[in-house]
Amino acid sequence: MPDANNPNPPKPAPAKPAKRSFQAPKGTRDLYPDDANLRRFITEAWRNASIRHGFEEIDGPTFEDAELYKVKSGDGILAEMFGVFSGKSPEDVEAVRDPSRGPPYVLRPEFTPTLARMYAARAAQLSKPTKWFTAGPFFRAERPQRGRLREFLQWNVDFIGLPGLGEGKPTDDQLAESKARADAECIACCVDLLRSLGFTPKNVRVKFYSRMSWVAWMQDEGVPPELVQPTFMLLDSRTKMSEDVLRQRCAEIGLPPRIASQVILGSSMGVSWDLTKGHPSLLGLFRPMQPLLDALIDLGVAEWCEIDSSIVRGLAYYTGMVFEVIADGERAVAGGGRYDNLIELFGGPPTPAVGFGMGDVVLTNLLRDKGLLPERKALLDKLSQTPAPLRPDAFVLTADESLDPLVRGLVADLRRGVESSHSLHARHSYKSTRNVGKLLKEAAAQHARFAVIIETATTATIKPLDAGEQFQCPLSEVPARLSSLLHP
Amino acid sequence: MPDANNPNPPKPAPAKPAKRSFQAPKGTRDLYPDDANLRRFITEAWRNASIRHGFEEIDGPTFEDAELYKVKSGDGILAEMFGVFSGKSPEDVEAVRDPSRGPPYVLRPEFTPTLARMYAARAAQLSKPTKWFTAGPFFRAERPQRGRLREFLQWNVDFIGLPGLGEGKPTDDQLAESKARADAECIACCVDLLRSLGFTPKNVRVKFYSRMSWVAWMQDEGVPPELVQPTFMLLDSRTKMSEDVLRQRCAEIGLPPRIASQVILGSSMGVSWDLTKGHPSLLGLFRPMQPLLDALIDLGVAEWCEIDSSIVRGLAYYTGMVFEVIADGERAVAGGGRYDNLIELFGGPPTPAVGFGMGDVVLTNLLRDKGLLPERKALLDKLSQTPAPLRPDAFVLTADESLDPLVRGLVADLRRGVESSHSLHARHSYKSTRNVGKLLKEAAAQHARFAVIIETATTATIKPLDAGEQFQCPLSEVPARLSSLLHP
Repeated sequence: MPDANNPNPPKPAPAKPAKRSFQAPKGTRDLYPDDANLRRFITEAWRNASIRHGFEEIDGPTFEDAELYKVKSGDGILAEMFGVFSGKSPEDVEAVRDPSRGPPYVLRPEFTPTLARMYAARAAQLSKPTKWFTAGPFFRAERPQRGRLREFLQWNVDFIGLPGLGEGKPTDDQLAESKARADAECIACCVDLLRSLGFTPKNVRVKFYSRMSWVAWMQDEGVPPELVQPTFMLLDSRTKMSEDVLRQRCAEIGLPPRIASQVILGSSMGVSWDLTKGHPSLLGLFRPMQPLLDALIDLGVAEWCEIDSSIVRGLAYYTGMVFEVIADGERAVAGGGRYDNLIELFGGPPTPAVGFGMGDVVLTNLLRDKGLLPERKALLDKLSQTPAPLRPDAFVLTADESLDPLVRGLVADLRRGVESSHSLHARHSYKSTRNVGKLLKEAAAQHARFAVIIETATTATIKPLDAGEQFQCPLSEVPARLSSLLHP
Repeated sequence: MPDANNPNPPKPAPAKPAKRSFQAPKGTRDLYPDDANLRRFITEAWRNASIRHGFEEIDGPTFEDAELYKVKSGDGILAEMFGVFSGKSPEDVEAVRDPSRGPPYVLRPEFTPTLARMYAARAAQLSKPTKWFTAGPFFRAERPQRGRLREFLQWNVDFIGLPGLGEGKPTDDQLAESKARADAECIACCVDLLRSLGFTPKNVRVKFYSRMSWVAWMQDEGVPPELVQPTFMLLDSRTKMSEDVLRQRCAEIGLPPRIASQVILGSSMGVSWDLTKGHPSLLGLFRPMQPLLDALIDLGVAEWCEIDSSIVRGLAYYTGMVFEVIADGERAVAGGGRYDNLIELFGGPPTPAVGFGMGDVVLTNLLRDKGLLPERKALLDKLSQTPAPLRPDAFVLTADESLDPLVRGLVADLRRGVESSHSLHARHSYKSTRNVGKLLKEAAAQHARFAVIIETATTATIKPLDAGEQFQCPLSEVPARLSSLLHP
């Protein structure tokens, strides 16, 4: 073949033997431009929702020490993953050839162990609470099928630590409320992502439950403590049994018939409660979820959510609330829950945490099913829009503790973009202080553009933190006023 | 630990044995928020430069069939990479345990084989030429050191096929000019990235050469053909020898002393030519690079470039021009060249191609060395700016073949953002047609916002393709007029 830089090049070497034809490994994807743009459409939507809700981006290595995954799950887990080793390291090569050892590294199958390791390594320096997100490739060694690939993208959103607790030991009620608020922030971020992609509460539902609800109810009902764990096992596996078999197994372990009926009800009919149908505060089964219900209502996402006792989640590390995002005809598009013991397990201080993951494969199927994937030209335009700003647009605060719910409500409204206002990046303090000077200092340290000081139940002061004069306005006008200041 | 959803939870299980402490595998990175933001700063700069220059994003799997890398380099290459296997596949496990086989997959060490595979698979449907970029993680099994990690990010920009050739067999001169234009487009995109990050021609240089220059010069000088390859081997290894040893080796293979002196000159002094010092068209050694010099001047990047005979590049697949981006005190920050035989080797039709790669590790070191990393607040602001638009801002065309250099010059000016104009996403046709109707159709198919029709050497018509009236203006005013239409 002639060369650009020489009109008379030497003859090329004789042709190589046979042409080879190669494909992407089974269960992985080649992304041509339209596919790569679709990937960016999804990862930017994930990123924008995370940033508006005050989560900060992190990431870890693509492969991790194999040991990291044995902490939770033992050696057997290695057979579920892709092993990785350096072909240049005699020690690595020896390890993979030795049936009693195995690969030194694995491709990361999920993010939570990396997050726990990273948090544990810097727990002393990190702000309390810490809000992190990531979006990147993950890998599972399964046989590929609809909705499941061997390499896929996953968005992870995690709230580590607890919001709004002051000095000293909190009461149980304070702890429960604090955890519920962190849980609700994660769910609200997930709902905001769904809303930003065009889903509605009609076609996608956030279904949540807590194993602790079963525990509390069993305690109230006088179920002997030694029956709690066996009852859990029946609950976990109940969809795999007929009602008759389930009733027989309940009898075998000695569950009173009244309790057995409830377990079976949770199985055959599903205990589910649409939150828009009213506050189910009278139902004993739901009582432990009351703080979460309140927090979801505060953040304006209750209409997307329902209580569903069929949600248990497979992973062993969940310790409280668990949730899944479900649409008809597809696998769960997202799932997560509270994992209060994991950070400690990875060498960090005892730290309650909650988070969820969402994969790109099911999400893309769902967007396609619902006709929510933009046409090519509209997609190109969408990908050219300004991303959510990393500097907070607004930092909302108050000197009056009784106005705290208004702070959280306004932040939720600003993030969502009520009426014709833009969706903004809004934050509030998680500290217990109500000292306005300290709170303004926190706003400045986070490089917020505006502080919003809620003065009374109906008035607020908007204070530009870069330059400009502060002014008062009705609380209800704050979203529109900020929106026009930031997007003139 | 108490649970949010239950004030009286059952006692947790007894504490696990010893706490474990984990770190990222050697040579990989944990990205905390500031690190992740810096990563985004770099990947967005890569992406924006690519898009402004009309390259489209693609990507492939993180791991590939090991066979893919043996095509170019034989079995030995596996020892340089990270092997990957499914722990769930008995066949995979057996392969890694068998010293005569090895891993079925490897973590991708570079992108070019994936690109060649992807192009070969769809060559018939893809536009001619095809301009692709990608940015993602790559892996090498080396010992980590300054500027080299085991997992790193790399930007790849490739121009596949040839621009502007009509029907029928092109002459050698036409081929040479066409390849030079593709080469120059890649170099111009790389320069634009460097410029957008704050580098100047004073602190970073694009150094290029062509092995074919040596070949042509040797032919001109009457060096017998059988001495060309041995002379190359001396050129490749000349930095490892003293001048005396080199002169002796030249004598051993029978090189005339005049030629030997030139080889030594290329070694000990470096044949280097700053393009701003004038057009070195009289130097016989540089003659085969004349079309590339012309093309670099056309695109306004000649002041960043110099000819340097010490640039040879290690990879075997380069067939013509090779270049490196060099700054004092660091490894090459980018490198690439023309690889005209590779697509065919991977099962595609014979397709000339040129491209380059740039890693994030050396680039970040260099930005830090030169004080070009933005402070935290400025970085957050930068990451919140609008990305380069995927729809072309402008598609420039002409009915008059003699005005073609003005088309390329205007496109280069628009991409760069001359004077106070914005940097725009600009394209022109690579087809040989001068039929304005056909060219406008091409502009519309690419969803361009404006067509710019160069009418004479000094006038142009700006035609909005979405809506609005077309108008004429002086050619010199086109960048400012488009800039104010697109960024009012």
